[in-house]
Amino acid sequence: MIKKAVFVVFDGLCDRPLKEFGGKTPLEHAKTPNLDAIAKRSQCGLMHPLGFGKKPGSDVSHLNILGYPYDQYYTGRGPIEVAGLGIKLQDGDVAFRGNFGSVDGNWNILDRRCGRIKDVTEFAAAIDGLEIDDIKLIVKPGTAYRAGVVLRGKGLSAAISDCDPHEEGKPVMTVKPTDNTKQAAFTAAVLNKFLRKTNEILNAMATNKQRVKDGLVPANFLLVRGAGVVPTMQPFHEKFGMRAACIAGGGLYKGIGSFLGMDVLSVPGATGMPDTDVAAKCNAVVKSLESYDFVFCHIKASDSLGEDGNHVGKKEFIEKADKAMAILAKLPDDVLLVITADHTTPCELKTHSADPVTILFCNPSCRIDDVQEIGERAFAKGGLGRIDGKDVMTQIMNLMGKLHLVGA
Amino acid sequence: MIKKAVFVVFDGLCDRPLKEFGGKTPLEHAKTPNLDAIAKRSQCGLMHPLGFGKKPGSDVSHLNILGYPYDQYYTGRGPIEVAGLGIKLQDGDVAFRGNFGSVDGNWNILDRRCGRIKDVTEFAAAIDGLEIDDIKLIVKPGTAYRAGVVLRGKGLSAAISDCDPHEEGKPVMTVKPTDNTKQAAFTAAVLNKFLRKTNEILNAMATNKQRVKDGLVPANFLLVRGAGVVPTMQPFHEKFGMRAACIAGGGLYKGIGSFLGMDVLSVPGATGMPDTDVAAKCNAVVKSLESYDFVFCHIKASDSLGEDGNHVGKKEFIEKADKAMAILAKLPDDVLLVITADHTTPCELKTHSADPVTILFCNPSCRIDDVQEIGERAFAKGGLGRIDGKDVMTQIMNLMGKLHLVGA
Repeated sequence: MIKKAVFVVFDGLCDRPLKEFGGKTPLEHAKTPNLDAIAKRSQCGLMHPLGFGKKPGSDVSHLNILGYPYDQYYTGRGPIEVAGLGIKLQDGDVAFRGNFGSVDGNWNILDRRCGRIKDVTEFAAAIDGLEIDDIKLIVKPGTAYRAGVVLRGKGLSAAISDCDPHEEGKPVMTVKPTDNTKQAAFTAAVLNKFLRKTNEILNAMATNKQRVKDGLVPANFLLVRGAGVVPTMQPFHEKFGMRAACIAGGGLYKGIGSFLGMDVLSVPGATGMPDTDVAAKCNAVVKSLESYDFVFCHIKASDSLGEDGNHVGKKEFIEKADKAMAILAKLPDDVLLVITADHTTPCELKTHSADPVTILFCNPSCRIDDVQEIGERAFAKGGLGRIDGKDVMTQIMNLMGKLHLVGA
Repeated sequence: MIKKAVFVVFDGLCDRPLKEFGGKTPLEHAKTPNLDAIAKRSQCGLMHPLGFGKKPGSDVSHLNILGYPYDQYYTGRGPIEVAGLGIKLQDGDVAFRGNFGSVDGNWNILDRRCGRIKDVTEFAAAIDGLEIDDIKLIVKPGTAYRAGVVLRGKGLSAAISDCDPHEEGKPVMTVKPTDNTKQAAFTAAVLNKFLRKTNEILNAMATNKQRVKDGLVPANFLLVRGAGVVPTMQPFHEKFGMRAACIAGGGLYKGIGSFLGMDVLSVPGATGMPDTDVAAKCNAVVKSLESYDFVFCHIKASDSLGEDGNHVGKKEFIEKADKAMAILAKLPDDVLLVITADHTTPCELKTHSADPVTILFCNPSCRIDDVQEIGERAFAKGGLGRIDGKDVMTQIMNLMGKLHLVGA
């Protein structure tokens, strides 16, 4: 009987046929003896991450396939990115993605990314925790010039515009409410006050004065965008009754794990890039099953290479990852192994598409079908048929015997 | 052309692969030459009784696959069980499951089942038909200590609590309204009056006085639970324009037939247990086609054996039932034979699951596919694909040419 589950998501794994591969997709063309062997012991099928005909962003797709319907739980990228920076969000928080940028005295943008500054820890610390009108500003450094920004307090709304004009030389935009509520007007007003106050504080910092002396642009403005209110949500372990861990290299995916209340485990060598140590991640998955019931493992590079249109790189990365899958092929019989993707990334489009993705459920208790290898066309004939992304967790719960009875 | 239909439901027929059967399910492993022959002449597929990812109770599943969407018609087990005892329900009735129990002078429970008394006909008759505040109490004996209980009259509601504390030694609970409506308050008040009155009447009965003298607990309290209002519903023959019969051994399934307004036919030897005479039921189906257009035939034991985790017993019962299917294999060409299940009951889980079930439509007018045998995996490749339980009756009506035209 199934007691635990491993949920592997290869970002953008699936693709379309390529002339260069004799009409095969990168997944079909790659030599994948381990994934093929797993598929042979699985019930296979195709999955529409957001339902038929929806082209999924990685963030909404992950929420959906992890059992948090995106139309209910996705309120923008801000809350997810911010959760990934280790900020514990609360109901009612409004979260933003942020950059430290440079402005002149008239608030015209000199550089949106502050000369691609490497570290903004000092600047974030200087303005983190400010309070205006009973609202607290939380600022945590992200990678390079990036920051996570949160407004916390009563009566806030995410119905406000960005201040980031997304173009150098242009002036910072005044934040405005985008609906007629008192909350939106209040939030826009208080954020504008914060932008003025933080600009003053940052301008006064010795480090910034030194930067200007050195001919560098100062890190003197907090450019925010993508306001999202934090949705009221049950953490994963409460919603599904499973202690959950997240193993990922990419920041967004750590953010998703953190956003859902999973323990985000750190794995040396997990970079989210083609050089990532997939085997180290798989070993971490096996180890984490000692303490967790559900392990979400995210593998990023298949998507990035597809977005670069690098079909050879994508195929080679799949082959590299396949070697590591030998580790997961040996999971014991009480562990369900699910391998899927969050969306298709056709190399020819260099972006996501709505084509369904492969999904397999590997366990002796599954109605194993006669699919012999992994691939978009092979899985179209699988015994699972076609399922919706929102039903993936339901199927996992079903296989584990954890669903509630309807009726009597 | 199809004129009539036979609808066979094997309760809990489907399962998951079992190591003991070399990775086959009981249905796949069983020798089923007759079901296989029927499948060869059928259009086959898989059916999600309540839709994908819902774990069905037998009661809601039967309503759904018999064309009464459960979210609209299921109001609790009470009305269905009561219908099975031969009480003709009316719109607005509130129905309960009941036990004759024993209480002391302070209404503390001495025995919830009255010492598992064998027959309560006399006690039910003594209180059946009482009227208080223009509401009539209907009480019919069930098996052993059980009874069907109905309140009939104007202004009733099922939004009331149980009086049965479900534990001996505890006092009977006062029935309370569970919403703020006048109807709920009235129903709770009148039911409390009935409980007092019936306790007085039962205490005064000579049979109960004799029981006490004999050292037995008296049958002096009507413990009710699971109030359900009887939904407004069209009887089956009106909704689908077919005279319908129900052939079943288990009480719940006779109840469902009766609830839907079918004629419930009595078949000697139909026990609802593994010893049931499936052949007698199949012969009764053939005979009843002389008088009915639609015959629902329920076979129970496949489920009970799955719930016991008795995979060998389940397989053997399927083989026994298969022999009787030779009778249905000879139905004339104007009769559509549908064979399906109400849910999957994996022996490994010993309870229901949301895995889809096999369904076949056997008639020369169906688009017969190339499925060669009955089984969960074989039917996954059937020409019907996957359908929802709520669409089964629609498909039967379609095959019979009885659907209304949309448009012109």
